[in-house]
Amino acid sequence: MSSLDHLGLSRRLLLGALAASPLLPSLLAATTARAEDTRPLASWSDGPAKKAILDFIRATTDAASKDFVPPEERIATFDQDGTLWVEHPIYSQLVYCLDRVPAVVKLKPELAKAEPFKTVMSGDFEKIAKLSLRDFEEIAVATLTGMDVDQFGAEAKTWIESAKDHRWKRLYTELTYLPMQELLTYFRANGYKTFIVTGGGQDFVRVYSERVYGIPPEQVVGSALGTKFSYDNDGKPFLTKEPKLLLNDDNAGKVEGIHLEIGRRPRAAFGNSTGDRQMLEYTKAGDGARLSMIVLHDDDKREYAYGPAQSLPDTKVGAFPQALFDEAKKDGWNVISMKDDWKRVFAFEAS
Amino acid sequence: MSSLDHLGLSRRLLLGALAASPLLPSLLAATTARAEDTRPLASWSDGPAKKAILDFIRATTDAASKDFVPPEERIATFDQDGTLWVEHPIYSQLVYCLDRVPAVVKLKPELAKAEPFKTVMSGDFEKIAKLSLRDFEEIAVATLTGMDVDQFGAEAKTWIESAKDHRWKRLYTELTYLPMQELLTYFRANGYKTFIVTGGGQDFVRVYSERVYGIPPEQVVGSALGTKFSYDNDGKPFLTKEPKLLLNDDNAGKVEGIHLEIGRRPRAAFGNSTGDRQMLEYTKAGDGARLSMIVLHDDDKREYAYGPAQSLPDTKVGAFPQALFDEAKKDGWNVISMKDDWKRVFAFEAS
Repeated sequence: MSSLDHLGLSRRLLLGALAASPLLPSLLAATTARAEDTRPLASWSDGPAKKAILDFIRATTDAASKDFVPPEERIATFDQDGTLWVEHPIYSQLVYCLDRVPAVVKLKPELAKAEPFKTVMSGDFEKIAKLSLRDFEEIAVATLTGMDVDQFGAEAKTWIESAKDHRWKRLYTELTYLPMQELLTYFRANGYKTFIVTGGGQDFVRVYSERVYGIPPEQVVGSALGTKFSYDNDGKPFLTKEPKLLLNDDNAGKVEGIHLEIGRRPRAAFGNSTGDRQMLEYTKAGDGARLSMIVLHDDDKREYAYGPAQSLPDTKVGAFPQALFDEAKKDGWNVISMKDDWKRVFAFEAS
Repeated sequence: MSSLDHLGLSRRLLLGALAASPLLPSLLAATTARAEDTRPLASWSDGPAKKAILDFIRATTDAASKDFVPPEERIATFDQDGTLWVEHPIYSQLVYCLDRVPAVVKLKPELAKAEPFKTVMSGDFEKIAKLSLRDFEEIAVATLTGMDVDQFGAEAKTWIESAKDHRWKRLYTELTYLPMQELLTYFRANGYKTFIVTGGGQDFVRVYSERVYGIPPEQVVGSALGTKFSYDNDGKPFLTKEPKLLLNDDNAGKVEGIHLEIGRRPRAAFGNSTGDRQMLEYTKAGDGARLSMIVLHDDDKREYAYGPAQSLPDTKVGAFPQALFDEAKKDGWNVISMKDDWKRVFAFEAS
């Protein structure tokens, strides 16, 4: 596998929509979800998905239940891209890397004439879309490593508070799914600790996870690069992001990441692609009541339809083979249909 | 550096006390500390150490203070061995590895005649004490890797609930310092999340951290081996502990481990040896009010005196040079004198 893959930026690359530019921050999604505590799962239609969630919470939090789980053992893990927010047609973190190229070139002007930076600087989306995985890997290393971790955090924060997606012209952070925000709130209200377990870079997601999802940085597990401790000229210590992969938090790596940073098997897990398969399997294989759910993107009006419900032409986005949904059926995972199970998809939609 | 060092088992090896055997579990220390919430730091004498703690908490939790820290950013990290519990004369985790050797030999009888296992099986402490670092490394790999993570957890749990130290004839988990238990409680009562950041193996410490310190597994950062995801013959997924070092959580590795598993700089950090130096430096180098404290083992009656307060002959235990305490003075760290600052050391002592 390539190390671009490691960085969680691969496979679903895309094309077309590389647009991304500034404006006002927004807490709409999170705020709305939190204000609705008294009506848990208000944006969920009655149906098998909602019922599975309610049954699971009842079974694990009712002290009289044979499947009762002590509060300290209540761990729920959530994939981010495609599960908590929109991943199609391109990961926001990849847009971030491309957007950072001009700043990198400014620091190292010699890159302006070198590929793949020259192509990115040209702004020619068609050419950018044709860059190879190795090119994207080089871009990721140039834009995500070599700087102080605090500097990286500040830059990523500035970007995420202003960059907008192409279709809705909204901040990426507004594109979280309202029903999933309600689910996070509902789990926490029932004593569960909620974790993001993402193939994306954990340093990147940690920048906004608390504000957007109510999930603190220490509860974000993601692909991680090594860091290097050193001292500046004044003897002040600092950490630098290194181009060395510590954790490839995708596929089996998600289970390994959970063990590394959480240390116990989740009681509930949510995903949407083959990168989540092992996490869903591992969660479901535990004793007592366990909940594994996958989001099916079958709503081409309000969001997108891809994977088994594909109505788009073939793209490079994601891996959602029918086999994953066959496994869901066989292993007792629950499928969440965006189209059927969600009354609203985004907080900015009329209710 | 050796990989035994990686496992956090090195340097302070020692000799003598390899004894360790079963009995009743005990929550004495933790229970006592928790019952004393209304009298914070009751076992601390009035003095500069206690004052530094009280001042820091006031400065960071009073909304009117210029150094106020929002609750979600209140992170405090604690070294374990020598800071939260007794490390002298030997790390309990190393005793665990030696105690596991007979079970390993039972599974692989050919080891009975191979060094270093033969020496360990002989029970001859003098010879065991003379084993090399490489021997101990081999013992650590044999006893800490190759099994299912759940199996490891179950075995370590059985051991820690029964193994006793040589001097007090008490469970290791009773040898936590009451004043530090009170400190953990006091920090949490003031909205701080408390983390253990240990050179020891995080899988090992996570087995008892919640019961003994009120710190859940996901808030234990320690030296970590890789794991490998696979399926058994029935298609059930499991994780195996691998002899591959992911994180050497000691010295600069503590800061790197904090970045990896917590994702932000601590506001307060507590340690006692050179392995904690970088964590204390990095914490203190942050903006606003920061607290870095080191425990000085200067009480040869109630515990031990070593390091700058050394009254024992030279041992292989720890690295606590005078230079560390000189740095403390220079950089504004606070020293905790066991002898002067603690009215009681253990919960089992008469108050």
